[in-house]
Amino acid sequence: MANFLSRWQFRIEWGHCDPAGIVFNSRFFEFFDWGTWTLFGRALDVKPPELTGAFGIVGIPIVDASARFLTPARFGEAVELTSRVSEFRALSFDVEHRLIVREALAVEGRETRMWATRDPADPSQIRAQRVPEAVIARLQTQ
Amino acid sequence: MANFLSRWQFRIEWGHCDPAGIVFNSRFFEFFDWGTWTLFGRALDVKPPELTGAFGIVGIPIVDASARFLTPARFGEAVELTSRVSEFRALSFDVEHRLIVREALAVEGRETRMWATRDPADPSQIRAQRVPEAVIARLQTQ
Amino acid sequence: MANFLSRWQFRIEWGHCDPAGIVFNSRFFEFFDWGTWTLFGRALDVKPPELTGAFGIVGIPIVDASARFLTPARFGEAVELTSRVSEFRALSFDVEHRLIVREALAVEGRETRMWATRDPADPSQIRAQRVPEAVIARLQTQ
Amino acid sequence: MANFLSRWQFRIEWGHCDPAGIVFNSRFFEFFDWGTWTLFGRALDVKPPELTGAFGIVGIPIVDASARFLTPARFGEAVELTSRVSEFRALSFDVEHRLIVREALAVEGRETRMWATRDPADPSQIRAQRVPEAVIARLQTQ
Repeated sequence: MANFLSRWQFRIEWGHCDPAGIVFNSRFFEFFDWGTWTLFGRALDVKPPELTGAFGIVGIPIVDASARFLTPARFGEAVELTSRVSEFRALSFDVEHRLIVREALAVEGRETRMWATRDPADPSQIRAQRVPEAVIARLQTQ
Repeated sequence: MANFLSRWQFRIEWGHCDPAGIVFNSRFFEFFDWGTWTLFGRALDVKPPELTGAFGIVGIPIVDASARFLTPARFGEAVELTSRVSEFRALSFDVEHRLIVREALAVEGRETRMWATRDPADPSQIRAQRVPEAVIARLQTQ
Repeated sequence: MANFLSRWQFRIEWGHCDPAGIVFNSRFFEFFDWGTWTLFGRALDVKPPELTGAFGIVGIPIVDASARFLTPARFGEAVELTSRVSEFRALSFDVEHRLIVREALAVEGRETRMWATRDPADPSQIRAQRVPEAVIARLQTQ
Repeated sequence: MANFLSRWQFRIEWGHCDPAGIVFNSRFFEFFDWGTWTLFGRALDVKPPELTGAFGIVGIPIVDASARFLTPARFGEAVELTSRVSEFRALSFDVEHRLIVREALAVEGRETRMWATRDPADPSQIRAQRVPEAVIARLQTQ
């Protein structure tokens, strides 16, 4: 079964690029964040800022991120970012991102995130909770 | 005569916003830069990175920028940025930007830029040159 | 009488610079924001995040910003940003920023900000209030 | 033998933080980049922009980056970033970064980078080269 895949096309901007003329590495992690919000918004059919209210969570904070940089992307290039949840675990899940430029894989990334709620015992703290089955079902169905 | 107007729709991202939940001011100047490249690319029918080669310039460096922040834009909101050249002068020109959110004017900005070439006497230096008439004509015709 | 002047030295980083090898314009507005928080923190002797609590405000939101770019700053260069309040008005004040590189003025900027409190009639709204005399006194004394 | 360790203290700025009030994840990768340039600059006793010229390379491009986010860092907090090369391999090396806030480990990161030169057969291409022994020696000696 293929997981819900979100596609996002955009253009590499001048301000995304560094003196080597290629996208500065931290920008890809911005793009991944866009991709995750887009994925959840589409799969769950809520606007990104309404995700927390709709599901009674404080957010989907990131606990781990990584990227492999394979092909440079340059100013003005059209890119496509695809994002999907690649794994659900008890207390976290992985979002896999692939950025394509000139039909090649430019960057491959992964974010590990939590489905976070307030700790009833101490509302100043957040804690990871199991992602609801209904949410998992939406993210696993294309 | 209305000048060429470029429109750009995008979404406000989580990473664009600050702890007050609204777009951090410097991000608008990034958006303006996107808007200017989009405007020039469309009006002159070149891809942004080919602008310099197509016209024998080193770029359109910014010499002055300003913005008035009228209405906050928040995470997840759809915005539209319109950009047009509002004035051509002997050695610089102004690009006017307007960012619309919820049908209200969120930010009004202006960039002053140069049409910059290498100084033949000292190629390490750039100098402002008059914008070619053909370019002006394209930017002044809707 | 000279106003309280805050100085901030830092280094231009690779990620601050664009494909032309110089600081991308929006970054200067980030630097100005740093400069304003540093100025207020020092003049009022509070840590930046404690400013709102110490004075019963919601913040010092920016309503207008501008910059003139005079000399490019490049990767690895040491710069100094000086910031001071240049004018207090009834419902806003100006912070003036000057970024120095290689003993030359690289960028001259200005932010107009409000001293913002919650509107008692509608706490979802903020409104500009007169800056307290005690605060003005601290920002006007070197 | 302890590797050369570079320490960098700075303050978390308003513009580094997201609507949750904590540093937005991509910013940490900016900080890592600062840390790597600082480390190489200090260990090799060159200014960051002179690294390429001093060693005849085109740069130290990043091929892989990752981070674990353990403790949030907030606006105004003083942080310390420590950076050191943790491993040299034939065609790449790892830089390990640790960001400390309130005496706790906030973020643990790793960048894999290449010591990159132009390919003599095709100068438009770069290729990874073995890091010179003299460079390794400087980065391995505290």
